[in-house]
Amino acid sequence: MRVVCLAGGVGGAKLADGLAQVLQPGELTVVVNTGDDFEHHSLAIWPDHDTVLYTLAGMADPVQGWGIEGESWHVMDQLATLGEPTWFRLGDKDIATHLYRNERLRRGVRPTEIALELAAALGVRSIVLPMTDQPVRTRVRTDEGWLDFQDYFVRLRQEPAVREVAYGGAGLAAATPEVEAAIAAAEIVVVAPSYPVVSIGPILAVPGILESIREVRGRGAPSVGVSGIVGGKALRGPADRMLTSLGEESSALGVARRYAGFDLLDGLAIDDQDASQAGAIAELGIQPLVTATVMTNRASRAALASAVLEFAIGIATGRTTEAGAT
Amino acid sequence: MRVVCLAGGVGGAKLADGLAQVLQPGELTVVVNTGDDFEHHSLAIWPDHDTVLYTLAGMADPVQGWGIEGESWHVMDQLATLGEPTWFRLGDKDIATHLYRNERLRRGVRPTEIALELAAALGVRSIVLPMTDQPVRTRVRTDEGWLDFQDYFVRLRQEPAVREVAYGGAGLAAATPEVEAAIAAAEIVVVAPSYPVVSIGPILAVPGILESIREVRGRGAPSVGVSGIVGGKALRGPADRMLTSLGEESSALGVARRYAGFDLLDGLAIDDQDASQAGAIAELGIQPLVTATVMTNRASRAALASAVLEFAIGIATGRTTEAGAT
Repeated sequence: MRVVCLAGGVGGAKLADGLAQVLQPGELTVVVNTGDDFEHHSLAIWPDHDTVLYTLAGMADPVQGWGIEGESWHVMDQLATLGEPTWFRLGDKDIATHLYRNERLRRGVRPTEIALELAAALGVRSIVLPMTDQPVRTRVRTDEGWLDFQDYFVRLRQEPAVREVAYGGAGLAAATPEVEAAIAAAEIVVVAPSYPVVSIGPILAVPGILESIREVRGRGAPSVGVSGIVGGKALRGPADRMLTSLGEESSALGVARRYAGFDLLDGLAIDDQDASQAGAIAELGIQPLVTATVMTNRASRAALASAVLEFAIGIATGRTTEAGAT
Repeated sequence: MRVVCLAGGVGGAKLADGLAQVLQPGELTVVVNTGDDFEHHSLAIWPDHDTVLYTLAGMADPVQGWGIEGESWHVMDQLATLGEPTWFRLGDKDIATHLYRNERLRRGVRPTEIALELAAALGVRSIVLPMTDQPVRTRVRTDEGWLDFQDYFVRLRQEPAVREVAYGGAGLAAATPEVEAAIAAAEIVVVAPSYPVVSIGPILAVPGILESIREVRGRGAPSVGVSGIVGGKALRGPADRMLTSLGEESSALGVARRYAGFDLLDGLAIDDQDASQAGAIAELGIQPLVTATVMTNRASRAALASAVLEFAIGIATGRTTEAGAT
């Protein structure tokens, strides 16, 4: 079963891992946000891509969720000695990824091809695609002005309230042929429990992607999401505060409303503790699935992935699972 | 006493360390060969500069002579996993130097300024200057054709016979203001026991350097060298074979003849075991100093540096030390 998953970083990587566990090799294509990408220490760093890559390669650090398990920090320590900033921690193995990428970019290789090469080298049996080959840079407006995303997210630890989000360059970017082909061939589109505004938002801002999803939905393929807001809180990071400071609602319903604005979803999986919001979500024209959405280990990732795929199949065949809906 | 030392890699670094030991802080300026510099894994790598830098910073690996003591190799190992070439070994701390440099170059900072920054960050109290800010790339012609220097030197382990050497870009390069000022202010010029053809040769090929040395010699500052060929053999590497395959003589006298062709030296220090060549060297118009030239530890570096400086002072004052000459 061909599945395309739109994903940001940690939450997206976990669901992608669950999907990879329950699908056959090659059936899963993950389209990752590149709006977080940036250049630092002259390295081309793709945080969301690499989190998905390392997770699918079984290399991800299980505690912090990003980076590589058992990393060492010798390069970083020496950069500190040389007076360089260290707020964005880069492990030694991780730096090898960035050096590989730098060298390939220097040779004129497309980001998409580089992503495919890295996945092959690390034994990943799913397809991980950057949302676009053109640069898109997410920026956030705070009370102190506009900030580059990693400045806000890592250096300032997401402390400033976000008043506005811009996807710099997205209007000039285009979905790659690989992304368009994967979506066109998809039997199910999954929107991972990533930040709606700063992880999924940039993907939807790339001309061609939303259109491709609408087209494939028009041909009967369902699009289902998973809410990353559980009990009114983000499981991780500032997605909840960000929704609030942007004037939206920090809840599963808020997530449903945001995606309804894009006409993105046929269904949305929400957590058991948010069951009371299912009715309001259904009123938006989005079918709710109430289930356990918190992924605490690899087995729960696979369980959520299975539930989401069954839910999507149910929508597609008109036999929507009503069990969870209130 | 202001001293300028022209230097390549390991041999140059050792003598530079000796000079730094016996001079006051700031008195020594090392002008390093940049013809070995290259880009690898998208990093700006300056092998001779870094060998001198690390040696003067007291960080150099004492066994292999290049690289940093106690290095780890995590980045390199992961690059190997990604299928990247590993013939040029880069340690983790060393990579931090290259990343720092990459980032500064990207910001448009001149190589000379970057070198000064690195030396300051690592506590080096001598001045280490690239011979030029423009790219110069040494290439060697072998029976299989032209090779980039590091291809020949590291990847092919100096095995092919060298038929010709070219300093690509040298004609378009220029000595930096810093190099010209250092030479103009020098009371002694020292030519380190580095490869005459591939380490000192590129320095002499940069327009402005040889002219500056001639000018300062014209004002009475002596220029003295140290032969890196001892007993007909290079202490390290292929300098001996290279001289032979280039049709020159692998001996202290051969070194003297090569430098006589540039009218570079007033004096040349040769090893005790080469004492019999002193007469022939004197006939070239170069005063010989016969002394212990093999630097096996930090004390012998300082001893050789002292001997060379005294020798130069003797030449300058007309009271040439005859003791060692036969």
